[in-house]
Amino acid sequence: MEFLTGVRQKETLEISELLAVDGEGQTVKVNGAVHTIRNMGNVAFVVLRKREGLLQCVYEEGVSKFALKDVKEADTIEIEGVLEQNEKAPNGIEIRMESIRILSEPADERMPLAISKWKLNTSVDAKLNYRSIALRNIRERAKFKIQEGITRAFRDFLYGQGFTEIHTPKLGAKSAEGGANLFRLEYFHRPAILQQSPQLYKQMMVGVYDRVFETAPVFRAEKHNTKRHLNEYTSLDFEMGYIDGFEDVMAMETGFLQYLMELLKKDYAKELKILDITLPDVSKIPAVRFDEIKQKVSEKYDRRIKNPFDLEPEEEQLISQYAKEEWGSDFVFVTHYPSKKRPFYAMDDPEDSRYTLSFDLLYKGLEITTGGQRIHDYQMLLDKLAARGMEEEGLTHYLDTFKHGMPPHGGLGIGLERLTMKLVGEDNVRETTLFPRDLSRLEP
Amino acid sequence: MEFLTGVRQKETLEISELLAVDGEGQTVKVNGAVHTIRNMGNVAFVVLRKREGLLQCVYEEGVSKFALKDVKEADTIEIEGVLEQNEKAPNGIEIRMESIRILSEPADERMPLAISKWKLNTSVDAKLNYRSIALRNIRERAKFKIQEGITRAFRDFLYGQGFTEIHTPKLGAKSAEGGANLFRLEYFHRPAILQQSPQLYKQMMVGVYDRVFETAPVFRAEKHNTKRHLNEYTSLDFEMGYIDGFEDVMAMETGFLQYLMELLKKDYAKELKILDITLPDVSKIPAVRFDEIKQKVSEKYDRRIKNPFDLEPEEEQLISQYAKEEWGSDFVFVTHYPSKKRPFYAMDDPEDSRYTLSFDLLYKGLEITTGGQRIHDYQMLLDKLAARGMEEEGLTHYLDTFKHGMPPHGGLGIGLERLTMKLVGEDNVRETTLFPRDLSRLEP
Repeated sequence: MEFLTGVRQKETLEISELLAVDGEGQTVKVNGAVHTIRNMGNVAFVVLRKREGLLQCVYEEGVSKFALKDVKEADTIEIEGVLEQNEKAPNGIEIRMESIRILSEPADERMPLAISKWKLNTSVDAKLNYRSIALRNIRERAKFKIQEGITRAFRDFLYGQGFTEIHTPKLGAKSAEGGANLFRLEYFHRPAILQQSPQLYKQMMVGVYDRVFETAPVFRAEKHNTKRHLNEYTSLDFEMGYIDGFEDVMAMETGFLQYLMELLKKDYAKELKILDITLPDVSKIPAVRFDEIKQKVSEKYDRRIKNPFDLEPEEEQLISQYAKEEWGSDFVFVTHYPSKKRPFYAMDDPEDSRYTLSFDLLYKGLEITTGGQRIHDYQMLLDKLAARGMEEEGLTHYLDTFKHGMPPHGGLGIGLERLTMKLVGEDNVRETTLFPRDLSRLEP
Repeated sequence: MEFLTGVRQKETLEISELLAVDGEGQTVKVNGAVHTIRNMGNVAFVVLRKREGLLQCVYEEGVSKFALKDVKEADTIEIEGVLEQNEKAPNGIEIRMESIRILSEPADERMPLAISKWKLNTSVDAKLNYRSIALRNIRERAKFKIQEGITRAFRDFLYGQGFTEIHTPKLGAKSAEGGANLFRLEYFHRPAILQQSPQLYKQMMVGVYDRVFETAPVFRAEKHNTKRHLNEYTSLDFEMGYIDGFEDVMAMETGFLQYLMELLKKDYAKELKILDITLPDVSKIPAVRFDEIKQKVSEKYDRRIKNPFDLEPEEEQLISQYAKEEWGSDFVFVTHYPSKKRPFYAMDDPEDSRYTLSFDLLYKGLEITTGGQRIHDYQMLLDKLAARGMEEEGLTHYLDTFKHGMPPHGGLGIGLERLTMKLVGEDNVRETTLFPRDLSRLEP
């Protein structure tokens, strides 16, 4: 019997700890994976991959107390050596190696991808086929640190705004947006679906906590095979009560984006540099009506409006181009989407019920958010369902929530992988999805 | 066209903002849901439910500029009135109502549950059937704020320990622990499953970031119908590389629990008080071998050991009782579980391969965590699979990761709803699951 009393102190140092060591010439211990070995004859550079970056370790024949051949790429090792300053080395430090201890060895050191190159110049498919190896590349893994920063900023910002985090079920008997595009399965001899959105649940929880959010997977059985679509993705969702209008929701998202950029600058500067990212200006984001921007784009780019009630992908591109040229913004809110294009719970514009009090946020030509005000009145919901020929069956619990009172509210959902993609400058959403699921990919 | 420039300043005040108002007698605006109305004749108390708690508002005939009958329970309203101190009121403040504005009205004000009572004295089933209403009760919703605190502490603690957050897919072609207890579905004409754990993915990511975590749903098609089992739950998972032994994993969990208790004391004091929770002492947590504690329990409680390689639920109870009586701890790590009871990836004890370098954490008689060291050597993994008669097919990508080198590592998974349940003193895990999924429940 023993007692555990908390996190154990480690003998080995991380890069930030090495940088904090007072004075050079001290003997230190470090560990890591052998990222690459550059043999220069009497001297060799053994570069360790550590979670905080690369660490240059110097082997010198006659000084180091082991043979260079004892260590190879893809080993994980522990090194004892002397810490030195070297402005040419990553982070300006290196370790003069004295002794090593092999922690583990690869069965096959011929890597399927050249992960130690600065850029992995290979196809998306090759990267995905060797995903867990490809991500060992410093630039590849940096993208998902940026993704971490986004999720973290979303949560921390919303906690600060009085939101409560919730966990809603992904298995259900019924889904928010009707019967299309649902993955179906059998649940103990009953038909079930995977939720394509936490929509109904987060609305129900507004009656409990006023403001709620969730960061969780959603599932869409859409047969799209594009660079923008995934069949499983992480949705950053929030819903807020006591709004004066859907502008409150857009304002909250703007606040989140501002918080995000500050957090990235502060805590993810290393990754921004690795990926050579210039953060967008989000001090003010233009919002423009759907019908108005269609008209503006049509005029400016001499383009005929084919369908006044729909946006084509090319139009989304042009709207973003317009916003950049006219208002200097990479982001643009497009508001008042046509009612036909929005789900039953969307609040129609009382001034023109062909449109809704809703919005999309476009970022460099890509829709990354859909949101808006929701119907909070029980009878209005029943009427909307009836007008659409939808059944109340399966929505009983949702509707009962409104029967017993709900404040005016609205919310949004952000596609995490899409936002990451645009932020890091990729053009395929698979590049910013750890293990993407699409029409042809269910593994790894 | 307009510009959004960030979160909008609200005119209405939250409870913490009211408490910060300098001096009483000021006119303020607040909003909220009418939780209950107590009519005392010339005076009535209109109690608002707000996200930070209850707020007492006082209606006085002749002073308030509206009729009491204009407001009813389950309305959401905005109030203008005068802020006063009253030590008998919740938080020591109340609002003398001057005028109101109705924001929304219920279609039916007869609530299915008496949510304004202090305790909802009704069955678990009734609570779940009216879940979104039941949670409007102040004690019910407090449980899920504690749950938020747990997830938040888990993430914040691990960020501080150099972990990276990941999002792994829930749809897959193959799962970690073999073929049993999986939900199956069709994925574009291919057979697919829902992951019962992020195990294989988080291990693969150790080769990338050294330390990773995920907080996400997992799915288990187990036909258990008990107070401890769910078919979908939130798993708090982490995996860490460069460990000296599985004790490092237990030490990290102990550190998390210590961080959690401090966070709850600091940021969730209100909820701890509402639920009358005394936090457990986690300054030191005993760890004892599986075979040893079975023997000790057998001797102390005069109980015959039926199966030396398995733990019965009653034994888990008695182990916790033993840990409390002998070591004064609500928590106890049980280590070195029999190899037969652990999945293929568990590292066997080199000193006795009938046992593994693994552990469970029991909290007041309930297993809330399973963890341990994993095999990191490619050949050892192949041998283990062969010894179990398992196929490599479907594990190719996982195995390739090890082929190209992996550090010694280990990790764990914590059941969020179970930890919440024990912390808030419930005896059914459905009480601490927002919308539980079990053998009979797929809705709401």
